[in-house]
Amino acid sequence: MLKTAVIGLGYWGPNLVRNLSKTKGVEVKYLCDLSQANLDNWKSFHGATLTTDYRDILSDPSIDAVAIATPVSTHFRLASDALNAGKHVLLEKPMALNVNECAELIRIAEDKKLVLQVDHTYLYTGAVRRIKEIVSSGELGDVLYFDSVRVNLGLFQHDVNVVWDLAPHDLSIMDYVIPHRCIAVSGSGISNFGGDLENIAFATLYFDSGVIAHINVNWLSPVKIRRIIIGGTKKMIVFNDLEPSDKLKIYDKGVDLKNSDMDGIYSTLVKYRTGDMLAPNVDGTEALKYECNHFAECIRTGARPITDGEMGMRVVALIAAINESIANDGKKIEIGVAAI
Amino acid sequence: MLKTAVIGLGYWGPNLVRNLSKTKGVEVKYLCDLSQANLDNWKSFHGATLTTDYRDILSDPSIDAVAIATPVSTHFRLASDALNAGKHVLLEKPMALNVNECAELIRIAEDKKLVLQVDHTYLYTGAVRRIKEIVSSGELGDVLYFDSVRVNLGLFQHDVNVVWDLAPHDLSIMDYVIPHRCIAVSGSGISNFGGDLENIAFATLYFDSGVIAHINVNWLSPVKIRRIIIGGTKKMIVFNDLEPSDKLKIYDKGVDLKNSDMDGIYSTLVKYRTGDMLAPNVDGTEALKYECNHFAECIRTGARPITDGEMGMRVVALIAAINESIANDGKKIEIGVAAI
Amino acid sequence: MLKTAVIGLGYWGPNLVRNLSKTKGVEVKYLCDLSQANLDNWKSFHGATLTTDYRDILSDPSIDAVAIATPVSTHFRLASDALNAGKHVLLEKPMALNVNECAELIRIAEDKKLVLQVDHTYLYTGAVRRIKEIVSSGELGDVLYFDSVRVNLGLFQHDVNVVWDLAPHDLSIMDYVIPHRCIAVSGSGISNFGGDLENIAFATLYFDSGVIAHINVNWLSPVKIRRIIIGGTKKMIVFNDLEPSDKLKIYDKGVDLKNSDMDGIYSTLVKYRTGDMLAPNVDGTEALKYECNHFAECIRTGARPITDGEMGMRVVALIAAINESIANDGKKIEIGVAAI
Amino acid sequence: MLKTAVIGLGYWGPNLVRNLSKTKGVEVKYLCDLSQANLDNWKSFHGATLTTDYRDILSDPSIDAVAIATPVSTHFRLASDALNAGKHVLLEKPMALNVNECAELIRIAEDKKLVLQVDHTYLYTGAVRRIKEIVSSGELGDVLYFDSVRVNLGLFQHDVNVVWDLAPHDLSIMDYVIPHRCIAVSGSGISNFGGDLENIAFATLYFDSGVIAHINVNWLSPVKIRRIIIGGTKKMIVFNDLEPSDKLKIYDKGVDLKNSDMDGIYSTLVKYRTGDMLAPNVDGTEALKYECNHFAECIRTGARPITDGEMGMRVVALIAAINESIANDGKKIEIGVAAI
Repeated sequence: MLKTAVIGLGYWGPNLVRNLSKTKGVEVKYLCDLSQANLDNWKSFHGATLTTDYRDILSDPSIDAVAIATPVSTHFRLASDALNAGKHVLLEKPMALNVNECAELIRIAEDKKLVLQVDHTYLYTGAVRRIKEIVSSGELGDVLYFDSVRVNLGLFQHDVNVVWDLAPHDLSIMDYVIPHRCIAVSGSGISNFGGDLENIAFATLYFDSGVIAHINVNWLSPVKIRRIIIGGTKKMIVFNDLEPSDKLKIYDKGVDLKNSDMDGIYSTLVKYRTGDMLAPNVDGTEALKYECNHFAECIRTGARPITDGEMGMRVVALIAAINESIANDGKKIEIGVAAI
Repeated sequence: MLKTAVIGLGYWGPNLVRNLSKTKGVEVKYLCDLSQANLDNWKSFHGATLTTDYRDILSDPSIDAVAIATPVSTHFRLASDALNAGKHVLLEKPMALNVNECAELIRIAEDKKLVLQVDHTYLYTGAVRRIKEIVSSGELGDVLYFDSVRVNLGLFQHDVNVVWDLAPHDLSIMDYVIPHRCIAVSGSGISNFGGDLENIAFATLYFDSGVIAHINVNWLSPVKIRRIIIGGTKKMIVFNDLEPSDKLKIYDKGVDLKNSDMDGIYSTLVKYRTGDMLAPNVDGTEALKYECNHFAECIRTGARPITDGEMGMRVVALIAAINESIANDGKKIEIGVAAI
Repeated sequence: MLKTAVIGLGYWGPNLVRNLSKTKGVEVKYLCDLSQANLDNWKSFHGATLTTDYRDILSDPSIDAVAIATPVSTHFRLASDALNAGKHVLLEKPMALNVNECAELIRIAEDKKLVLQVDHTYLYTGAVRRIKEIVSSGELGDVLYFDSVRVNLGLFQHDVNVVWDLAPHDLSIMDYVIPHRCIAVSGSGISNFGGDLENIAFATLYFDSGVIAHINVNWLSPVKIRRIIIGGTKKMIVFNDLEPSDKLKIYDKGVDLKNSDMDGIYSTLVKYRTGDMLAPNVDGTEALKYECNHFAECIRTGARPITDGEMGMRVVALIAAINESIANDGKKIEIGVAAI
Repeated sequence: MLKTAVIGLGYWGPNLVRNLSKTKGVEVKYLCDLSQANLDNWKSFHGATLTTDYRDILSDPSIDAVAIATPVSTHFRLASDALNAGKHVLLEKPMALNVNECAELIRIAEDKKLVLQVDHTYLYTGAVRRIKEIVSSGELGDVLYFDSVRVNLGLFQHDVNVVWDLAPHDLSIMDYVIPHRCIAVSGSGISNFGGDLENIAFATLYFDSGVIAHINVNWLSPVKIRRIIIGGTKKMIVFNDLEPSDKLKIYDKGVDLKNSDMDGIYSTLVKYRTGDMLAPNVDGTEALKYECNHFAECIRTGARPITDGEMGMRVVALIAAINESIANDGKKIEIGVAAI
């Protein structure tokens, strides 16, 4: 039996407790939060010790793994302490404040041969797993673009801007499904109410293959939109996460290219082609349940998690670059190979 | 009776013929196209002379006005010849290839005291006229952003990129309803199939007031989207042109700001507020019908058209700047005051 | 060249003129309407004689066929006169005022070996043709039910009720695609504003096979709905005619039956099964264009039209039975075999 | 402090436990279910005694009220025992198997001066409470019709048909918001897989005022639809419970009547009128939370619940009449005044 602890019982932590405690072969033995009020909600939770001091957990040799769902500014300290104490770590996204912190966490985990998994939950949804399969199988042909809109009337965060808050979803999905390397980004944004935390931001991401990606995140939209379009030469995908059913649609639409030599001028004719649309029935398992199983299995087998530290670091590198570009009038920022 | 001619009978010209000929006080006396085949379709059209030579029209002193719906590369020559021949001009958008051509057309029209109207049809729809009223009345509060997505599986144009093709709609609506001056743009895009004509492009537009605008145009989307969101401090608008009804929705949603001094740190708290949504019943008159009436009335009264040469030139200036930015890695391009 | 005439130039007639005149091998030689004003709109129509007297057409031996788009109360007289004069007939739906009139028209057409086609245009849409194929191929399994909603804020007709006005669409589609015989109907309805013409009506239709159908027609709905659901044991269809794309959706959903003997009680367990959804790309040809070609081809080859007099008569029989049931408190009305 | 017990911990009971235990001034002291497995799920629930014998609860004088969420066949016995034992009762819908059982429960409750509330949860949603206000205020004008569609791919119940399963929602909403008395019903339906439990059913309901209502319930629809349209002379409502937002839409559409005397024939001209649409922001409180508060308040104050025994009985009377009509070929069944 894998013995685990959950640190941080704010917005997301309770979901981790619920899912980890139902994961086969996993027990939740500690719940930790700085706030006694948050802890008090869990008084009747069976078999777990409540504590405000995470060091109680790290010093307990019976604990195998910790799930950390605290503010991002504390990720590095908590995760590095946990890894150094020999615990496997499931770490809330975004992974850390900067690429250096991410790199250090990866290094420790490798040294200690521990699992370091970043909680990019979206990648464990049936829809995104299916998108990954479709793109990998070549069914789309060559990927041409990735276009995501993630807007709603959202809580204004007071410590991070909208890129840190919303873009990790899009960037992790993009990183997972696009089989190319992002080499540069350009961003723009605005802080409508003073301060320096943007509440609206846009970013274009350039890939080594010529693929282009775009992200639109906004805390001030009157309507909620969660839509990703992935264009390929053969087929195209629309993923609308708000549809009650048929969230994922695969369009048998694309382009036909014909090289021609018209009037002595060599040119490429582009014609579009339109066919059926298929909405595959996707696995409805709760993503976090699937992810907790994956975490437990990686610990047992030593397998590398889908959302490993490297992926977590690439997402942080992209966020940092987008914010750097926003701060520099949209200047194109190269993504160093070292960073990713 | 106002005597008019239509030059160019390709995709759009027939709509001009149909609407001008039904406009009260207006007669269509000439139809002109270089292609005899195009002309042949109009053999049974009552009362108009068919010609392949537009100079026949300009030299006929009985003709008061011409509507020009030819490729953009011919706009300057045809419109300047017409104005110089003393004809009022209704000119298809985009107005011309560059700002200089636009400025020259404006100069001639002013010299000759002729109406020069650019055919930005969208501004004459009931929905956009209503948006203009709502924003002007102050109902939205301060405008915060303008976000437009205009994508579909479109015909690839062989002479212009997707910015020239689709963005004039968004840019003209933005210019019309946002009561501030755009001062800089930053663009990105891709030409997926070689050549230098982008088929996907994104642009951020910066205003002197701090408003931000964004445009997403794409010829390669499997789904058609025509959606503009305008955020204000008091209310917000969503204009979805593809809805069969209720295209325009006004959300009584916004933000409440509270200045506070927490823990000695002065800060602004932003809270959102959510209320009713109203979809006003908008005038369903065909936009081009409304526009043709407006053209005739401007000629009769000497009034300035809503979509005058200046507006046409501002749109061309923005397109040129977006394309310049795309060609320069997203570099922020200032919009000269002279240009607009 | 097939020489034709169109009688009735009100709402629908102009569509017939436009499509017949573009049909290969067909010429429109006469346009006829009692109203001189209606005729005047067609002055510039090429090559056709305008007349207010349909007998001019019937007495012209060069005319092969007539299309009749006049009020239903005149259908019998005009169509029987035309058939007796040796003209093929394309007759607007509903075919006639009652089953007897329909039967007499069928008899004359057979005697004279003329084509009698009823203008149930919907059956010539790409979507309905595709539904017919899907059901016929057995892909749905056994058909279980047909459920149609056709409501909108509609013009109140002053000579017929909502069943005569809207239900012919549903009944003709149902008749075409359901491979069973309707044996009885039960209807209900209301005339909200006095008089005896119902503006809302509902009908249940019973089939010999156990299939059930239901129709909901309403002139007083604030929203427009055009949705047909066809349930089968293996798959199910939703046809939403107002969707801009993907009007037709085939759900790989159905039921699995298991006979079981639980606790000594023989019973059938019904479990549902859910799979992918496919929205096939359907032929976008204008239905009336397709139908005019079909009419011309039936005349040339002697083939029986898809929407022949028998189908027209079955639809009239169902309308009559629904109205009889409404007038008799929803009493179940048997559909005589003779009638269909 | 009000001391309560929940009897029945199957599908719905847990929601009652969760909401009652959070209701101010209410404690849940007993949980009861025949299944020990169901009870075992509640081992860690604080402060409640678990029992398989509901008589333990009834014989405990400290218990004020019980909530019953067991199969309908047990409602009468459990509720009458509870009332006779002096407990207030919150009873799951449908209230009982027939009108006689309902009447007897009402009688006992009145004798004992106890609250008898039927759990028609829908009436406590913000949307339905708002609809009630709108209709009551006269904003719709005269109500003309009520049209509900409630279909999905549903679990086939083995003890009740689709009318018992789904129609209580529609019938209770109809009863609540339509200010007239239903006097007769006519129903139709089918049992597609043998047995006598219909899986599809339709019903028309006639009111003393001339209002008509219609219900369409179906366990075999590939798509889920939850839509109620209420038509009035001045305005119309569409309530789409599956919309993520803007579930309730009020259309300023209606009819204008003009009495006229055309050609000596007195007639009523009906013209429709179309205006804005308003989607009011409705209270998002969980309906069951609101309802539990209402139950507690009725007990404290002696007020009559919105969903009292009479309403529960009227719904049962309508279900019974619909089923009787289905069994009798759609015969119109009068609703006895005594029954309602």
